[in-house]
Amino acid sequence: MPTDDAQQFASDNYSGICPEAWAAMEAANRGHAPAYGEDVWTARAADGFRALFETPCQVFFAFNGTAANSLALASLCQSYHSVICADSAHVETDECGAPEFFSNGSKLLTARTTSGKLTPEAIRALATNRSDIHFPKPRVVTITQPTETGQVYTLDELRAISATCRELALSLHMDGARFANACASLGCSPAEMTWQAGIDVLCFGGTKNGMHAGEAVLFFDPDFAEDFGFRCKQAGQLASKMRFLAAPWVGMLESGAWLANARHGNACAARLAQAVAGLPGIELMFPVEANAIFLRMPPDRMEALRARGWRFYTFIGGGARFMFAWDADPARVDALARDLEAVALDRAA
Amino acid sequence: MPTDDAQQFASDNYSGICPEAWAAMEAANRGHAPAYGEDVWTARAADGFRALFETPCQVFFAFNGTAANSLALASLCQSYHSVICADSAHVETDECGAPEFFSNGSKLLTARTTSGKLTPEAIRALATNRSDIHFPKPRVVTITQPTETGQVYTLDELRAISATCRELALSLHMDGARFANACASLGCSPAEMTWQAGIDVLCFGGTKNGMHAGEAVLFFDPDFAEDFGFRCKQAGQLASKMRFLAAPWVGMLESGAWLANARHGNACAARLAQAVAGLPGIELMFPVEANAIFLRMPPDRMEALRARGWRFYTFIGGGARFMFAWDADPARVDALARDLEAVALDRAA
Amino acid sequence: MPTDDAQQFASDNYSGICPEAWAAMEAANRGHAPAYGEDVWTARAADGFRALFETPCQVFFAFNGTAANSLALASLCQSYHSVICADSAHVETDECGAPEFFSNGSKLLTARTTSGKLTPEAIRALATNRSDIHFPKPRVVTITQPTETGQVYTLDELRAISATCRELALSLHMDGARFANACASLGCSPAEMTWQAGIDVLCFGGTKNGMHAGEAVLFFDPDFAEDFGFRCKQAGQLASKMRFLAAPWVGMLESGAWLANARHGNACAARLAQAVAGLPGIELMFPVEANAIFLRMPPDRMEALRARGWRFYTFIGGGARFMFAWDADPARVDALARDLEAVALDRAA
Amino acid sequence: MPTDDAQQFASDNYSGICPEAWAAMEAANRGHAPAYGEDVWTARAADGFRALFETPCQVFFAFNGTAANSLALASLCQSYHSVICADSAHVETDECGAPEFFSNGSKLLTARTTSGKLTPEAIRALATNRSDIHFPKPRVVTITQPTETGQVYTLDELRAISATCRELALSLHMDGARFANACASLGCSPAEMTWQAGIDVLCFGGTKNGMHAGEAVLFFDPDFAEDFGFRCKQAGQLASKMRFLAAPWVGMLESGAWLANARHGNACAARLAQAVAGLPGIELMFPVEANAIFLRMPPDRMEALRARGWRFYTFIGGGARFMFAWDADPARVDALARDLEAVALDRAA
Repeated sequence: MPTDDAQQFASDNYSGICPEAWAAMEAANRGHAPAYGEDVWTARAADGFRALFETPCQVFFAFNGTAANSLALASLCQSYHSVICADSAHVETDECGAPEFFSNGSKLLTARTTSGKLTPEAIRALATNRSDIHFPKPRVVTITQPTETGQVYTLDELRAISATCRELALSLHMDGARFANACASLGCSPAEMTWQAGIDVLCFGGTKNGMHAGEAVLFFDPDFAEDFGFRCKQAGQLASKMRFLAAPWVGMLESGAWLANARHGNACAARLAQAVAGLPGIELMFPVEANAIFLRMPPDRMEALRARGWRFYTFIGGGARFMFAWDADPARVDALARDLEAVALDRAA
Repeated sequence: MPTDDAQQFASDNYSGICPEAWAAMEAANRGHAPAYGEDVWTARAADGFRALFETPCQVFFAFNGTAANSLALASLCQSYHSVICADSAHVETDECGAPEFFSNGSKLLTARTTSGKLTPEAIRALATNRSDIHFPKPRVVTITQPTETGQVYTLDELRAISATCRELALSLHMDGARFANACASLGCSPAEMTWQAGIDVLCFGGTKNGMHAGEAVLFFDPDFAEDFGFRCKQAGQLASKMRFLAAPWVGMLESGAWLANARHGNACAARLAQAVAGLPGIELMFPVEANAIFLRMPPDRMEALRARGWRFYTFIGGGARFMFAWDADPARVDALARDLEAVALDRAA
Repeated sequence: MPTDDAQQFASDNYSGICPEAWAAMEAANRGHAPAYGEDVWTARAADGFRALFETPCQVFFAFNGTAANSLALASLCQSYHSVICADSAHVETDECGAPEFFSNGSKLLTARTTSGKLTPEAIRALATNRSDIHFPKPRVVTITQPTETGQVYTLDELRAISATCRELALSLHMDGARFANACASLGCSPAEMTWQAGIDVLCFGGTKNGMHAGEAVLFFDPDFAEDFGFRCKQAGQLASKMRFLAAPWVGMLESGAWLANARHGNACAARLAQAVAGLPGIELMFPVEANAIFLRMPPDRMEALRARGWRFYTFIGGGARFMFAWDADPARVDALARDLEAVALDRAA
Repeated sequence: MPTDDAQQFASDNYSGICPEAWAAMEAANRGHAPAYGEDVWTARAADGFRALFETPCQVFFAFNGTAANSLALASLCQSYHSVICADSAHVETDECGAPEFFSNGSKLLTARTTSGKLTPEAIRALATNRSDIHFPKPRVVTITQPTETGQVYTLDELRAISATCRELALSLHMDGARFANACASLGCSPAEMTWQAGIDVLCFGGTKNGMHAGEAVLFFDPDFAEDFGFRCKQAGQLASKMRFLAAPWVGMLESGAWLANARHGNACAARLAQAVAGLPGIELMFPVEANAIFLRMPPDRMEALRARGWRFYTFIGGGARFMFAWDADPARVDALARDLEAVALDRAA
């Protein structure tokens, strides 16, 4: 078994570039084009987002999620403000302090959660716990849709959160590193899941969705977008040959690949979830609502699985994480399911 | 005449992706690969740099030059230090304060120059002008090779500068946004032009050289590279699908395209320079040593040139700038030469 | 009962300037003196610290503890590093994100503690929990001596912590906002409690100790102090009329008031602790080892106490906090004890 | 001649604490008082400013001018904005990069001036020179009143500048390190020289005016003051024993010492200017409009003056600078005048 097959579910960042994104890059790579976003591809990508979201939002392109989320948060607060997030939020656990760096010191206030989902109550508690000058004033809430463990906020949950934010004068940011998977999961429109539900700023992830790199930052409130282009430039996030960061978006959006890719990943996760249901000693740690599965199993079962060549991370709660990207091979999903069954039954035997 | 043809010399950022870089991306886009630089392409690209530079340097990959140069400078100083550069250095004039942002406040001290070349004397003057606590302590020198106006430091000039830096306890950074063009111009090895001449850190530009994006940061002194990976990550410069940032480098380095591309650009510039020599009213503003040409001409000649469809910038000294990328079309260079002659003779007539 | 009497134990920041500090300021206020620390008082204060600590340490003066601690921590790490501290550490809970601001983004990693005392085990756990590039690399440990709740690390505890720090390549910083109280408590020399126990940098608090303002930053390892003066200047912590920040230190150190003041505060705390021992429904929350007392009591007892005019904070664990400064009035301590007894017996009755 | 006498004119930072400020500190040093600005002195000082400026401005207290000016500027712009100032402005030349640090990277754009006075034309030129995304967007203008060389903007000049600022959507900040001297010079009210002339934020210097330390930041537009207290706290500029930073202001404002002190300094400068008028080889470099005098004279005359014990700086244009503080001794002014005459005539002889 080639290593490649065995490791593909370790992360959805292990996936390649999808055909639609690739074709658009190829098309963009003809002749010359103005730099720094003055090209036709950039305009077309931005228009694509405005069409998809059914609103004249402001669109910016950043190289990766670290920067997109950090810059968006920095635009919503000052260094002496704080940002409310879940304890398992990527911005807290896996960005090496990027939000603090880009904002020059904003503190993240974390709410203990089980599935990475914030609630109005948790937000209110953190936002009202301190109001003295010795503690950074809460100003922003960031939610991850879907969460790190693959749960999806419902539209009702989103609306309840945004209502609380408005009441408490907090801005609401959505980290959509896997935004498309959430859309596919809820079956709702991007508009419904964002500005219509009260989201102020969205970071829409393109990398995991099938691009070589790239995240789009969408401001639904133009006031927050003021001079954001300068902010991106200063922070090293303005591509000179912008067409190669924008064209893949055109390919993804115009073809619908953004959604099809997400559906495929979600379907693979669901397929594996179904296959392992009822296996002795193997337990789903979280509801499977997007493209992630976390399996709790005894350490020796993990070892047995690894012995069969599978690669996976265990950094969340010690469970085995499997992520399914746009290019997840269903045959390999089934092979994983068979191996899980095998190691489970060994255990039971 | 299609717009594309007419604007291609406005900037070398208008160029596309060269075949060698493209082919490597295509090859990298097979199957799955570990993220964040744990893939084989990243290792191979780093090894490629070490082979090319004939030294076990530390290699990091950033998305663009804004970030690469700013992060490199930040690694060489603290916020209360200052960075000596030419008044026309890109870090001073066109990065929207990125060096100050990444370093959290380091001041740039600029030397007045005519061609963007610092001298030992200019460095010494700025480095010794103030030594009191009320002014940021000079700690780094950054030189651009070639300069913004296309001049190339000779090896002797580089050695003289680095000797001065060592004497004054200053680190020496090279902004090599067009590093390959300088190598092609001097006909020397990358090693000779960098660590053998006393350069501590180099930012080697890939974007203008033929890639879709990407700069390599090379530390010749491993001490300066300590924890630089963390710095990149925090600053939003660690690509998740790193293989697509690394593979183009493999294509460029292993094929020699990095140098061939630069030679082509330089040759186009030389070709135009030769063609316009002696034209009345049109004057080369700077020696043509790389892939740039700046022409001083009367405003009405500029207008006439624009009327013929040519696009060019005039932000440096009011002259018409033409840049020649790896994909500059020699036929269009000749067409430009003919049009320059035409507008010049109109004028003279 | 005048308000003043009733509120004096709410905080040791409510105290005034002690006679020794005042007299030195008065003496310093004769004639003219060079600015920015070039005066004789500054030299004398620095020498006073070197004499007191029996070592040629580097001494800097900052206006307050927020800045002193944040600048010291910033000098020990970079923005992509992290700082290990107790969950109740002042730098985490009451500095409005100052450490993150001065360091441009360093994250604080907090250990759950009961009395604010870090242990080698807690440090090791936080320092070794993550070593990947996606999380800020632990680089510094900061301990508060005494802690926010008034506990004092023993010399053995300090030595054990510093041994762990050295093993893990972590620097060790001591927040000594009430450093003198810890010295008074342990009866050891400042040298024993700092560099001889492995502390790299100390912030010695002067404000609570009896000055109008001012903290001293002492570097026992000169490497860490490199260019620290520039850091202070840039961060707005270099006093122009430095003599008025330095002279009080001279008054405190040369007279021994620094220690006498602390002893007085500690003694008042002990006096109250003794007086309330055994009172029904009133419980000491923490061992009384410095100048703080935290009393757990039913809410109605707190109300009753407040009704008698006493002011106190309850932000730590809901207990009533009383702080005893250099100028705590023993008669008022006794009055407080009597009132505590009264409200306690009411309750019991 | 004691050193003290000879050096007193080297800087107005060499002066001590004036009796009115001292008396207020003494009065404040009775009993206990709430910390962090919740005391009566702080309220009284803020009210004093509102009365003096005849407007309900927002008032904050910082330890020194480095911080006050930097925090004020940071509140008016973001890191990717720029600040227009004179080339000789203190924020540019003598703050060790503090504005860049507090703002996390805002660039200072300097206008070449002869006396440190910006003009509408110079502001317009810098504000409109660049509007592309590659250069920090101009957002703030800072003027120093009086300038580093002692010139005072007239009310008409101020109004013309503020009109230009409004037209160009720039905020207007006044660095008033010696604000009182400007008031004394113009004979106008503080209101006329600030908000009535279009100033948005003023930093009113207390240190040189006769206090031990302290600057007041006055926001005439409350929008700019939003959360400024948090900003001060995070940046290490919130004094715990605030009463000792506020009380001297009470002493200065309520007694009128702020103005009397300034008048004295100005008068001493005028007295010396008059005395040296016409001396051969000694020339006033700038009009004497506040408390500074700069004298151009041959190097050997400077040496001769130093040989007579006088201390002075020459960092501006090589001239001998003399500053006259609130406590400048007129007898010493006359002595200096005599010595200047002596060295001048020696030269002429």
